Amino acid sequence: MTEQYLMDPDRQPTLAGVERAAKKIAAILPATPLLPLEIDDTTIWCKAECLQPIGAFKIRGGWHRLTDLTDDQRIHGVVAFSSGNHAQGVAWAARRLDVPATIIMPEDAPKAKLDNTRALGAEIITYDRMSGSREQLAADISQKTGAVVVPSFDDPWIVEGQGSCGLEIRQQMLALTGSEPDQIVVCCGGGGLASGSALANPEARIVVVEPDGWDDMKQSLACGTIVPVGDNPPATECDALQTLQVAPITFDILKARNALGLSVSPAEVHHAMRVAFAKLHLVVEPGGAVALAAILAGKIPLTDHTAITLSGGNVDNQLYARIIAGG
Amino acid sequence: MTEQYLMDPDRQPTLAGVERAAKKIAAILPATPLLPLEIDDTTIWCKAECLQPIGAFKIRGGWHRLTDLTDDQRIHGVVAFSSGNHAQGVAWAARRLDVPATIIMPEDAPKAKLDNTRALGAEIITYDRMSGSREQLAADISQKTGAVVVPSFDDPWIVEGQGSCGLEIRQQMLALTGSEPDQIVVCCGGGGLASGSALANPEARIVVVEPDGWDDMKQSLACGTIVPVGDNPPATECDALQTLQVAPITFDILKARNALGLSVSPAEVHHAMRVAFAKLHLVVEPGGAVALAAILAGKIPLTDHTAITLSGGNVDNQLYARIIAGG
Repeated sequence: MTEQYLMDPDRQPTLAGVERAAKKIAAILPATPLLPLEIDDTTIWCKAECLQPIGAFKIRGGWHRLTDLTDDQRIHGVVAFSSGNHAQGVAWAARRLDVPATIIMPEDAPKAKLDNTRALGAEIITYDRMSGSREQLAADISQKTGAVVVPSFDDPWIVEGQGSCGLEIRQQMLALTGSEPDQIVVCCGGGGLASGSALANPEARIVVVEPDGWDDMKQSLACGTIVPVGDNPPATECDALQTLQVAPITFDILKARNALGLSVSPAEVHHAMRVAFAKLHLVVEPGGAVALAAILAGKIPLTDHTAITLSGGNVDNQLYARIIAGG
Repeated sequence: MTEQYLMDPDRQPTLAGVERAAKKIAAILPATPLLPLEIDDTTIWCKAECLQPIGAFKIRGGWHRLTDLTDDQRIHGVVAFSSGNHAQGVAWAARRLDVPATIIMPEDAPKAKLDNTRALGAEIITYDRMSGSREQLAADISQKTGAVVVPSFDDPWIVEGQGSCGLEIRQQMLALTGSEPDQIVVCCGGGGLASGSALANPEARIVVVEPDGWDDMKQSLACGTIVPVGDNPPATECDALQTLQVAPITFDILKARNALGLSVSPAEVHHAMRVAFAKLHLVVEPGGAVALAAILAGKIPLTDHTAITLSGGNVDNQLYARIIAGG
């Protein structure tokens, strides 16, 4: 890598970058399993990213970004903002690489995510999700300390890192079924996982799924231009997917691929979490269950080789118990 | 395999048999992950058998046994008795091999296990766990129909099949850490998984864990001879481990290895289930959590390379929700 490459946050993510990220990630993290699930006599393949050490795929982007810091950047550390899973991903990588990390998290983030991020040794600053500007806070800290800002999706390293999940899906599906996926259904907040997985699977149809009322990627894909979430969006348990506006870096990739956007209701999410509990024995958080929810609700025609992401499992125990008991 | 071998239920299970079972199983089932869990700065390795298609390791013994049936035996089918996980293992293999299966299950088995076994196409006969003799019921059916009895642990194929789990642990741990396990802590009902894993790991220390009051393997190992469960054992949520008496085939292997027996309380099991939920994002049933429970309770000194089994995840949703919410 040239110094220029390492310093350029405006470069575009590429399939070659995804492959480089996947190599770095495979060196420290075994592939999470791709588990079969029978739905009406069709088998879909579920990528169990909730089994990552931090309980979510975000460890991928964090590792790819932080391992590409220059020696000088490492000394000044990183600053990230996140509802919790990206926070843990960056904190995990920072601890392992001995890089100072400051994480800006919404004050209403799930306690599990706040606790886990703190346990990983990061410094945490909280803000009000609906009024505070986390981007401004991060910029201020970066200005003061020289820390590199690590956004949760608007960054070429993050897109490439998350794309390693899509590359694993492609390789595992080929090994398990003899075919690559022809359709990948991805949980979508800012679209890092979706756009990275799209790069990793140039031939597959890409479907992104968001919670009702937070379906700005769906609206943006439908309009052909980035549309923010509307005023006063509904409360949602899918804290991992509460992105107010996506970015060109993820949107442009998905638009070029004619990705389909869908949204799911809270009841559909609950049902998917209960199916993951009963059939897969996996704990999936609400935001990590939206892709499965869309499939179970019959919103996506099943193809012969459909893969989905179960992207995270960090959910507070009381909420999880209520949802599972309600089945 | 000679016809004589295939017809001899009294042969002794062997390491070679475990290796043969593992080969057959690897051909249809990807290895379940061996997941790291940090406990007080020591990493233990957790074999996530709850991720098997039937949610438990019992699919291994069922597959090894049924694929070794002779053509004539296949026509007459199999009969098995089980609290639920072995039932599903045999039913899964039978469906895949198109062999008729009758399963004798206690009438108080978890609804999830009854439903899943029925969904796999097996014929189910229920009995009263504390008064009925499931062995007699199975013998009667075998007499009448010519079906082969497939016991849940007192059988060389079952021990070898479950041992494939221990062999995977050995291979995965070597790949992940550079060392084979020096200690394996196993959930124990009749001891099939424990004795098979002992065969697969000739150098490792073997620890078996049972629920308080159902610790007949522990008592038997302490006495040097098989001791049944006492009169009026306590109610337990660990339905998978309610074995009234172990068998020489499993006991002799564990005795020869100087295996240590331990037992755990309901509160210790609940804590382990909550840790598996929060740290591993795995749904583990009470009987599948006893090995982790013993470790978390500090009952076993941790070695550098300790592996444990999380042997199943089939638990009713209401019970699971109560336990998880109680944390």
